[in-house]
Amino acid sequence: MNYNWEEFKQELKNRKEYIDSCLDRYLAKADVYPPIIHEAMRYAVFNGGKRLRPILVLEGAKLTGGSLKSIPIACAIEMIHSYSLVHDDLPAMDNDDLRRGKPTCHKVFGEANAILTGDALLTAAFAVMTECAAIPGVKLSNLVRVIREIADAVGSQGMIGGQVIDLLSEGQSIDYETLKTIHSLKTGKLFEVSLRSGAILNGINEEGLKAIDEYAKNFGLAFQITDDILDVCGDQDLVGKPTGSDAKNNKATYPSLLGLEKSREIAEQCVEACIRSLDNFGLEADFLRQLAYFTLERQS
Amino acid sequence: MNYNWEEFKQELKNRKEYIDSCLDRYLAKADVYPPIIHEAMRYAVFNGGKRLRPILVLEGAKLTGGSLKSIPIACAIEMIHSYSLVHDDLPAMDNDDLRRGKPTCHKVFGEANAILTGDALLTAAFAVMTECAAIPGVKLSNLVRVIREIADAVGSQGMIGGQVIDLLSEGQSIDYETLKTIHSLKTGKLFEVSLRSGAILNGINEEGLKAIDEYAKNFGLAFQITDDILDVCGDQDLVGKPTGSDAKNNKATYPSLLGLEKSREIAEQCVEACIRSLDNFGLEADFLRQLAYFTLERQS
Repeated sequence: MNYNWEEFKQELKNRKEYIDSCLDRYLAKADVYPPIIHEAMRYAVFNGGKRLRPILVLEGAKLTGGSLKSIPIACAIEMIHSYSLVHDDLPAMDNDDLRRGKPTCHKVFGEANAILTGDALLTAAFAVMTECAAIPGVKLSNLVRVIREIADAVGSQGMIGGQVIDLLSEGQSIDYETLKTIHSLKTGKLFEVSLRSGAILNGINEEGLKAIDEYAKNFGLAFQITDDILDVCGDQDLVGKPTGSDAKNNKATYPSLLGLEKSREIAEQCVEACIRSLDNFGLEADFLRQLAYFTLERQS
Repeated sequence: MNYNWEEFKQELKNRKEYIDSCLDRYLAKADVYPPIIHEAMRYAVFNGGKRLRPILVLEGAKLTGGSLKSIPIACAIEMIHSYSLVHDDLPAMDNDDLRRGKPTCHKVFGEANAILTGDALLTAAFAVMTECAAIPGVKLSNLVRVIREIADAVGSQGMIGGQVIDLLSEGQSIDYETLKTIHSLKTGKLFEVSLRSGAILNGINEEGLKAIDEYAKNFGLAFQITDDILDVCGDQDLVGKPTGSDAKNNKATYPSLLGLEKSREIAEQCVEACIRSLDNFGLEADFLRQLAYFTLERQS
C-alpha cells in the first residue's frame, strides 16, 4: 500500500482535536459544584488519548451516511474508555502510578475520588448518549439499540468481565485461548461496539453490520498484537511509556506466547481480513482501510 | 390517620417479593461466565433491601395509568442503589465491613471485584432500562427522557456529587444547610427520579410532575430524618444494625444538629407536605399517602 503516513497521522490528529472539542462541550466545566469531581473527570478524559474509539464511531457512521449524528455516542464511548482506565489503575486493581507519563487519577485526587470519578464518567456517558435524541434524523429505536449494545459491550459479560478474568489470571501462566478471551472482552468489545454504534444510529442493514463486525474483530486483535510488539521493541520515547514492562510484569502477551515473528504474521493476517471485510464499501471506507494498515506502521 | 399498619407492612412485603422476582429475571444467573462477578452482583442486590425506590417507580407509574410498563426502570433503579452501596462501603470510602448484618461485598469477593461489581451493576442498570422499548405502549421519547433523568440524578451533580461532598465533610463539623445538601444529593435525587421515572414513562403532564416532585422531596427528607432518629432511639434488633453508630462516628445528623424533638417536628411537617402534594390525585395515590405516614411509624 502506498499511503502517505505523514498525511494520515495529521488526519488522525485533526480528528482527535475535533473529538476533544466535543468532549469539552459535553463534560461539565471544572468549576461546577462539587468542583473536585468535575476537575478529576476532565483530568481523566484529557490525558493525551488517541481517541481511536470515537474515531471508529464516526467512521462507522460515515459508512452509512454522515458522521455528525453520532458525535454524542463517540464522546460517550471515550468517556467509558476513560472511566475504565481510571478504575483499572486503582491500587486494588493494577495499582499504576503513571498513565501516559502522568500521575494516575487516584494519585492526584485520592482513591475515593478516583472511584467516584470513574463512576461519574460511566454515568455521564449514558447521559451524553441521550443527546442524540435531539439531533434531526436520529431514529429513537436505533438510539435505544445503541444504548443497549454499549451497555452490554462494557458490562459484566463484556469489558468488565475481561478485567475480572485478567485479574483472576494474574501471576498464572495462561494459554493462547485465555489470552484471546481476555483481549476480546477487555478491549475488543469496546472497539466492536464503537464501529457498530455509529453505523446502527444511521440505520445500517444487517449485511453491512456483519462486514463491520468482521473489521472490528480483526482490527482489535491487530491493534492488541502490535501494542504487545511495541512493548517489546518499540522506541520508549515514541510509545510514551517504559517498554519491556509486560516482560517485567510477567504478563502473557502475543510475543511471549507465540514469538515476535508469528505475532507479526497474525497481525498482518488480521489487517488483510480488515481490508477484505470492507470489499462491499467504496471510498467512504478508505479511512478505515488506512487505519487498519496503520496498526502495522504505528510507532506509538 | 387510621391505617392498618400490619396490613400495610404485608403489602410492602408483597411488593418487595414481586420486585425481587423481577430483579432475579433481569440479573444474569450466578454461573454465567465469569461467575465471580455475577455471583457478586447478586450478592449485592439480594441483601435484604426494602426496595423502596422501585416501589416509588411503580407508584409513580400507577398515578398515570399502570405500573407494569415501568418494571425494568424499577429494577434498574434498585441496581443503581445497590451499586452505590457497594462502592460506598469500600475501604477507600466508608470502609464498612457489614451491611444489614452481612459482610459487605468487598469482604466476600475482594476489593477489586467489589469495584467491578459496582461498575457492572451500574452498567447493567442502563441495559435493563432499554428493556422498556419492547413493552407495548411505551413511547421511546419518554424512555429516552427517563434514561437521561436517571443518569443526571445519579451522576456527578446528583448522587455521586453527594458522596463527594459527604467524604469532603468527614471529620468536620457541618451546618444544617450542608447536611441538607448532602442528603438531597446523596439520597434525595434517587428518590425523586424514582417517582418521576414511572410517571414520565406513562406520559404524565408537567403539573402532575410538579406535584410528585413535591412529594418526593418531602418524602426523602422525612425518610432521612426518621432514619437518623432510629439510629438514636430505635430498637437495634428491629433496625437491623447497631444503633448509636452516627454519634459514635461523630456524624452530623438531624437529631445532633437540631435535637430529637425538632427533628420529629420537621419529619411530621414533611409528611403533611407529602399528603398535600397529592391533593389532585384520588385513590390511585393512596399507597403513597400511607407510605408517607409510614415513615413516622416505621421501626426499621
